[in-house]
Amino acid sequence: ATALAAEAEDLENHRSDHLVRLLNPNVATMKEDVLYHFNLSTGTHDFPAMFGDVKFVCVGGSPSRMNAFIRYVGAQLGLDQPGAEYPNICAGTDRYAMYKVGPVLSVSHGMGIPSISIMLHELIKLLYHARCSDVTVIRIGTSGGIGLEPGSVVITRQAVDACFKPEFEQMVLGKRVVRSTDLDEQLVQELMQCSADLSEFATVVGNTMCTLDFYEGQGRLDGAFCSYTDKDKQAYLRAAYAAGIRNIEMESSVFAAMCSACGLRAAVVCVTLLDRLEGDQITSPHEVLSEYQQRPQRLVGYFIKRSLGKA
Amino acid sequence: ATALAAEAEDLENHRSDHLVRLLNPNVATMKEDVLYHFNLSTGTHDFPAMFGDVKFVCVGGSPSRMNAFIRYVGAQLGLDQPGAEYPNICAGTDRYAMYKVGPVLSVSHGMGIPSISIMLHELIKLLYHARCSDVTVIRIGTSGGIGLEPGSVVITRQAVDACFKPEFEQMVLGKRVVRSTDLDEQLVQELMQCSADLSEFATVVGNTMCTLDFYEGQGRLDGAFCSYTDKDKQAYLRAAYAAGIRNIEMESSVFAAMCSACGLRAAVVCVTLLDRLEGDQITSPHEVLSEYQQRPQRLVGYFIKRSLGKA
Repeated sequence: ATALAAEAEDLENHRSDHLVRLLNPNVATMKEDVLYHFNLSTGTHDFPAMFGDVKFVCVGGSPSRMNAFIRYVGAQLGLDQPGAEYPNICAGTDRYAMYKVGPVLSVSHGMGIPSISIMLHELIKLLYHARCSDVTVIRIGTSGGIGLEPGSVVITRQAVDACFKPEFEQMVLGKRVVRSTDLDEQLVQELMQCSADLSEFATVVGNTMCTLDFYEGQGRLDGAFCSYTDKDKQAYLRAAYAAGIRNIEMESSVFAAMCSACGLRAAVVCVTLLDRLEGDQITSPHEVLSEYQQRPQRLVGYFIKRSLGKA
Repeated sequence: ATALAAEAEDLENHRSDHLVRLLNPNVATMKEDVLYHFNLSTGTHDFPAMFGDVKFVCVGGSPSRMNAFIRYVGAQLGLDQPGAEYPNICAGTDRYAMYKVGPVLSVSHGMGIPSISIMLHELIKLLYHARCSDVTVIRIGTSGGIGLEPGSVVITRQAVDACFKPEFEQMVLGKRVVRSTDLDEQLVQELMQCSADLSEFATVVGNTMCTLDFYEGQGRLDGAFCSYTDKDKQAYLRAAYAAGIRNIEMESSVFAAMCSACGLRAAVVCVTLLDRLEGDQITSPHEVLSEYQQRPQRLVGYFIKRSLGKA
C-alpha cells in the first residue's frame, strides 16, 4: 500500500510538472536502458542533452516522409542551415528513422499497431529519460477516406476499432486488457483553427477507424483473400460513416491509448488518399499522391510555428 | 451454386498445378492490379517476365538484412557478378524492399502482423499474376528465446497466439474470423536436416508464440507500461515453455495462415537474440547480434542450394 501511495504521488507530481510519465516503476531503477529498436541507450547517449528541449514529436509511417517533414519544419522555423543535412539519429538500425530540429522530433513508425507500439514504448522512455515536459505528439499519416473528396485531411476526434468502439484491446500475459483511445479535444480545435487560417485544403474532424489489416480488415475487394461481396463491403463502410467515421488507418488506436496514458497531448492528422465508397485501389498519379501527403505536414508545420509564436 | 462449383474446380486445378492460388475471385477480373505498397502494377510491369521463375521467397523484417541475404544467396548459388549491385525492385517506395537473384526473391516486411500481412497480400498476388508454381516461402527472422542459449535457431512447428492456441484471429467486416496456422511438416524436417549437415549452431524445432506487442504483449518488464510483477512474467513464460513454445516473435501466425491457405509451402526460421527467462533487454554486443542474425540466412541459403542440387 505504501509503494502504491508513493507511486500515485509520483504520478501526480509528474502530471503537475507536465513531465512525461511512465506506467512502469521498473524503469527508474534500471542502471542502463537500451532502446533496442532506436539503437540508442542511456549508457552510451546523453538523453537530456540530446532531447531535453523536445516539445513536439511528429510521427508517421514512412522514413523518407519523416525526413521530408524535418526539412520542411526546419525551413518553416528558420532553423535550417543552407545545404545542411539532418542526420538520422537512429543510424545503425533500419527499424525506425529519427530526425530533430530545434524543439521538433520527427520519427517513423512503420505500418500497423505492433510497429508503432514498439516505437512508442521506446519514444516515451526516451522522453522520460530526457526529462522532457509539455510534449505534444502528432501522427501525420495517410488513410482511406469514407465519403470525402480524396486529398481531404481528417483530424481524429476518436480512434475506434473495427466494431466502431473507442477502445484499444491488447493481450497482456495472455489476458485481454482494454484501454480507452481518448485524444485531446482542445488540440483538435487548435488544429482545425490552423487549417482555417491556412485555407489550403478541406479539413474535417471525424472518427478514425483503426484496423489490423489493410485488405480484408478494411473491407477491400482486391486483396489475396476476399470472402464477401461488394454489397457487404458497402454496408460495412456506410455503417462506419453513420458512426461518425471519416477515415480508416492502422495506428491511431494504440497511439491514442499510449499517449494519453502517459500524459502526452496527442493528435492524429491524416490525409485521405481515396474515397473507399468509390473504390479500393490507390490509382492516383504519383505527383497527386505526393502533394496529398504533404498536407498533414503543412498543417502540423503551421501549428508548430504558431505554437512557438513564429506565425 | 454454379459460381461456387466453378471456383472450387478452379482451386482444385491450381492445387494440382502447384500454382499460387488466390482466395479472391475478383482479382482475375481486374484490368489492372496496383500493388500499392510495392510500387508495382500489372499495368506497368510484366510480372511473368520479372517473377515467373521464382521458386523461393525469403522474407524478414529489416530491409538491409534482406539485401544482405540476396547478396549471400547470389554468391552461394554462383549467380553473382563481381561488383554487381542488386537493385531494389520496390524503388520508389520505402514501405518494403525487394531483391531477386535467379529463382530467389528476398522481401522485407517490417515489424508486426499488420505490416507483414499487407506485404503478403501483395506478394501472393504478385506470384499469382506471374503464374509462379511450386513456390516455397520462408521467414528468416529474429526472436526472443525461452529456455534456449542465445543464438539458437528455432524452426517453427506451430505458430501460436498469446493464449498458446494455433490460431490466427482477424476482424473481417467487424466480425471475428479464425484461421489455422499450419506449417509444412516435411519442410520442417528438411530444414532440420540442413542444420544437421551444416553443424554450425544449435537448432531446435518448437512452437513459436506470435504477439501483437513487443513489451507488455511478451511479458517484458522494461517497457513504458508494465502492470505485473517479475513473478507473473516468469509464470507466463514457463507456461509457454510447457506448451512447447521455444521462441516469441511478431509475424509467424498470419504468415502461416496466409501461406497455407494459398497453397504455398511455408516455414519460419528465427534466431533467438536472448533467453527471456534470463532477461528482457537485448544487450549483446553489435558483432554478436550481427552474427546471430546471419544464422537463419546461412541455414536457408544452404537449404536453397541443396534444393537446387548445388550443395
